[in-house]
Amino acid sequence: MRNHFITLDHGSGGEASHELVHDIFMSRLSNRFLNRMDDSAVLNLSGGNVAMTTDSYVVDPIFFPGGDIGSLAVHGTVNDLSMQGAVPLYLTLGLILEEGFPLEDLAKIVDSVGQACRESGVMVVAGDTKVVPKGHADKIFINTAGIGSIPDGIDVSSCNGKPGDLILINGHIGEHGLAILTRRQGLELRSALLSDSAPLNSLVGRILDVCPQTHILRDPTRGGVATALNEIADQSGVGIHLFEDALPISRSVLAVSEILGIDPLYVANEGKCLVFVAKEDVKSVLRSMKKHPLGKKSAIVGEVTDQNIGKVLLKTKVGGTRILPVLTGEQLPRIC
Amino acid sequence: MRNHFITLDHGSGGEASHELVHDIFMSRLSNRFLNRMDDSAVLNLSGGNVAMTTDSYVVDPIFFPGGDIGSLAVHGTVNDLSMQGAVPLYLTLGLILEEGFPLEDLAKIVDSVGQACRESGVMVVAGDTKVVPKGHADKIFINTAGIGSIPDGIDVSSCNGKPGDLILINGHIGEHGLAILTRRQGLELRSALLSDSAPLNSLVGRILDVCPQTHILRDPTRGGVATALNEIADQSGVGIHLFEDALPISRSVLAVSEILGIDPLYVANEGKCLVFVAKEDVKSVLRSMKKHPLGKKSAIVGEVTDQNIGKVLLKTKVGGTRILPVLTGEQLPRIC
Repeated sequence: MRNHFITLDHGSGGEASHELVHDIFMSRLSNRFLNRMDDSAVLNLSGGNVAMTTDSYVVDPIFFPGGDIGSLAVHGTVNDLSMQGAVPLYLTLGLILEEGFPLEDLAKIVDSVGQACRESGVMVVAGDTKVVPKGHADKIFINTAGIGSIPDGIDVSSCNGKPGDLILINGHIGEHGLAILTRRQGLELRSALLSDSAPLNSLVGRILDVCPQTHILRDPTRGGVATALNEIADQSGVGIHLFEDALPISRSVLAVSEILGIDPLYVANEGKCLVFVAKEDVKSVLRSMKKHPLGKKSAIVGEVTDQNIGKVLLKTKVGGTRILPVLTGEQLPRIC
Repeated sequence: MRNHFITLDHGSGGEASHELVHDIFMSRLSNRFLNRMDDSAVLNLSGGNVAMTTDSYVVDPIFFPGGDIGSLAVHGTVNDLSMQGAVPLYLTLGLILEEGFPLEDLAKIVDSVGQACRESGVMVVAGDTKVVPKGHADKIFINTAGIGSIPDGIDVSSCNGKPGDLILINGHIGEHGLAILTRRQGLELRSALLSDSAPLNSLVGRILDVCPQTHILRDPTRGGVATALNEIADQSGVGIHLFEDALPISRSVLAVSEILGIDPLYVANEGKCLVFVAKEDVKSVLRSMKKHPLGKKSAIVGEVTDQNIGKVLLKTKVGGTRILPVLTGEQLPRIC
């Protein structure tokens, strides 16, 4: 049975490492770059602006409703590149495995990495696997770094918000974080709550086709919509108004967040994008977003002002206004 | 005292995360790319061949004679890029921290990352920090991914070995692995055994200046010289002879490896480079290597043959020949 689990040998760089690479990785992720098996991949890039990013994934549980740590690691990095207006191209994949981790689970996760790559049109071009003794890590941690090319003329940045901009989002908020939490706590729900984990590059491509002068693209992951908007208010030196009654929230998320006493505005999303555009562009952008499978529930949810600089104000359903601060404390550890 | 240790809040994406980024990271790694604080860095690359690589570091202990996990993470990725003939340019830095990890140790490690970057002429352009609850990871794991540009006309690859090639190495083998092991086991040694961890890009630059037609560059890390040569024999479809009496080994390494019963040929190096060149180029390459601070003990240690394809044969000091197989089993877990 030893052969059904990760052993320290698998991380030694020796024969067992080679077997693991061939049996688990190459069969699922094979491409002309990876197949060279050199220390680095050799890529041919046309010159110009290139986006580069990294994220580590420590999500618990590693399999959750709507995805797993493998698909999440691909989507997360594809999305970080997309938020820069880049076309994601190449990823690296670094795994840290705990001794005793089932090979069957590893194969499932690498399958999921491969499928997410194909769906997003990216390739894993370099990889690395380390194994630590039992108890030195929890099952599996994944790092994905990635690069993508930024088309000429595109300049999106969280620094680019302007008073008068309108803010859109492509659908229901809070689903990833609450799907993880309910699975982790073993809550039984009548309505299935699925993570929204998805690659946003295709949706972003449509938005930039319609509106290459888009000011900001931002995925509200850890810390949720409220934290992302606070960061933008700070980076752009503007104030932000958020319209509570316009926020797309599903009944399941509303119900679960009420039971758990968690504000969905602070819950991580993994397939959502905040879009800041000038007022005159908002109609065409909203129309193009709604036509995309990942944007059917798109809505205008806020606006940028020159008042209350650096702050986010929530215009509540009952007509009041309250400040939405940055997340303080940790609502949900190991959410991504 | 809570503030002297990493808490789960530091990984939440909220206020404590921001403080950590500003207090620990930005002050030590600041550069024009990182300072934008967007989801991805935006780099301007001239077109052409680009190398891309990733490695995770789980070394234990995290501080060791001759370096720490921070310098190692920079050197390792700088070296992987250099082994492709690339000029290393940009790194990403992904940290996984255990709750309770001392902030003072984190600051030391990030200092060390910054210093190693300056020495190697690279920049950290994007980063990510995750925190897992106490007991879910062991102190700190680091991932560095990197990209570098490959000058026109350079084509080094472990597939390029040709019968007749001579093999050089830039100095003493086995030092990194044995430095880690002796520190971990608390062995007292009369002679200090230091890790050889160092950035090889400057040495490689010299080699490629003298010999742009260099066939192979390879850093013998996990699995050591024996495993790296076996991989090359396999990838190039050649046989390799290694001359035991030509191998640079320090007295300390010889002594410690005898006491511990470990073959230094299978021990990880972090500042060594195997260089394969045609016979007519070897003199000038050896001369240029010896002039470099990291190459004073450079030597010709082997040759490529068209016999025993896929195998590495050790020509022993007493005139015998034995096969050096790929490493089987794990000599030293968490060596890098």
